[in-house]
Amino acid sequence: MHIALLGGTGDIGQGLTLRFAADTDHDLVVGSREADRAATKAEEYTCELDSRGIDCLIEGATNENAVDGADIVILAVPPYTVADTIEVISSSLSEDAILVSPAVGMKSDEAGLHYHRPGVGSVTAVAREAAPESVRVVGAYHNLAADVLANLDIDLDLDTLVVGGEPATRQTIIDLTEQIEGLGALDVGPIENAAEVESLTPLLINLGRYNDDLHDVGVRFD
Amino acid sequence: MHIALLGGTGDIGQGLTLRFAADTDHDLVVGSREADRAATKAEEYTCELDSRGIDCLIEGATNENAVDGADIVILAVPPYTVADTIEVISSSLSEDAILVSPAVGMKSDEAGLHYHRPGVGSVTAVAREAAPESVRVVGAYHNLAADVLANLDIDLDLDTLVVGGEPATRQTIIDLTEQIEGLGALDVGPIENAAEVESLTPLLINLGRYNDDLHDVGVRFD
Repeated sequence: MHIALLGGTGDIGQGLTLRFAADTDHDLVVGSREADRAATKAEEYTCELDSRGIDCLIEGATNENAVDGADIVILAVPPYTVADTIEVISSSLSEDAILVSPAVGMKSDEAGLHYHRPGVGSVTAVAREAAPESVRVVGAYHNLAADVLANLDIDLDLDTLVVGGEPATRQTIIDLTEQIEGLGALDVGPIENAAEVESLTPLLINLGRYNDDLHDVGVRFD
Repeated sequence: MHIALLGGTGDIGQGLTLRFAADTDHDLVVGSREADRAATKAEEYTCELDSRGIDCLIEGATNENAVDGADIVILAVPPYTVADTIEVISSSLSEDAILVSPAVGMKSDEAGLHYHRPGVGSVTAVAREAAPESVRVVGAYHNLAADVLANLDIDLDLDTLVVGGEPATRQTIIDLTEQIEGLGALDVGPIENAAEVESLTPLLINLGRYNDDLHDVGVRFD
């Protein structure tokens, strides 16, 4: 498959790009608002993988060009830029594409981070509203710690959650995700269930703050 | 310690009573609105433990009598009765007691269950507002599947989350909880962080619905 990782120059985008490159044979394009930055990061990731003996070709492009022909488009951008990013790429998106939204809106107070629920119910729902009707949208990867993903020395033993769209669409993303070694993916049902999925991210960050040994903590369901 | 389990005749109350009885030496009193029902259930639990060779004495009492002299009061009652239950027991509560709230408000739609956040921020906050000022209040045990807890044939391998009150109060409940074999307890900080803790419960129930092998699913953080 052809996977475009928009915001692939940021933390979670970097981690997902490196893991997909290390464990799968999919074509990967890192997208950014600036073509130069995307190209630089794509080269940096390729070099890192090369140094580990992993042969891969990661391309860099503007977000708009990155999605051209992509089967999967991962929106690894801040929550408040999700709708704008989708608007920019809409005309280049394939009708058969699946958009994957890992973004979570959060606000903080003295106690910790809190889920900041958008008016439409979730960031996944924001993406769904912004996307062309024919394009499928799911939420996934919200609860993965960027530093853990990006450090290929760490063997993963984590679950992530896939929510939104039809069952077959979720299954496509579950199957794709489980190609990453040590990463399990679970079905949480339709998009109405996305808020509880997204709420897990501030909970994990708060756990990291109040427990010495739980920085970058992940989760396993069983 | 002396532990009162209000709503101890219900699902989660039964599970916690059996586990505390099986794994600790604390004095346990099952509370209910009706003394007869509490006594019947207390005897039922004692018999079950007896049949497993576990020697214990579980008492039954009205909620009001159950909390008399209790160090820990677990409010295993439905979310909409938390405030009323606290009102009933307030005059009998010891000033040094710690109230523990495992209740979660949920609403359902076709897709699944959803966190129904009370106006004050969480059910834990509802309990905090209803309780006398001197009494400490934490949230805990929200994410434990009642059927798993109550089935002593199952070896636990689960975490639960403790939120609200001062750090020392949370630590008391963490230490108490970890006396149950296979149950880890983690600190999530002050009461402002309770909504994300409570939101985990509908997420787990939705996971059980959309994944064949995840009925009564639990969670481990690491």
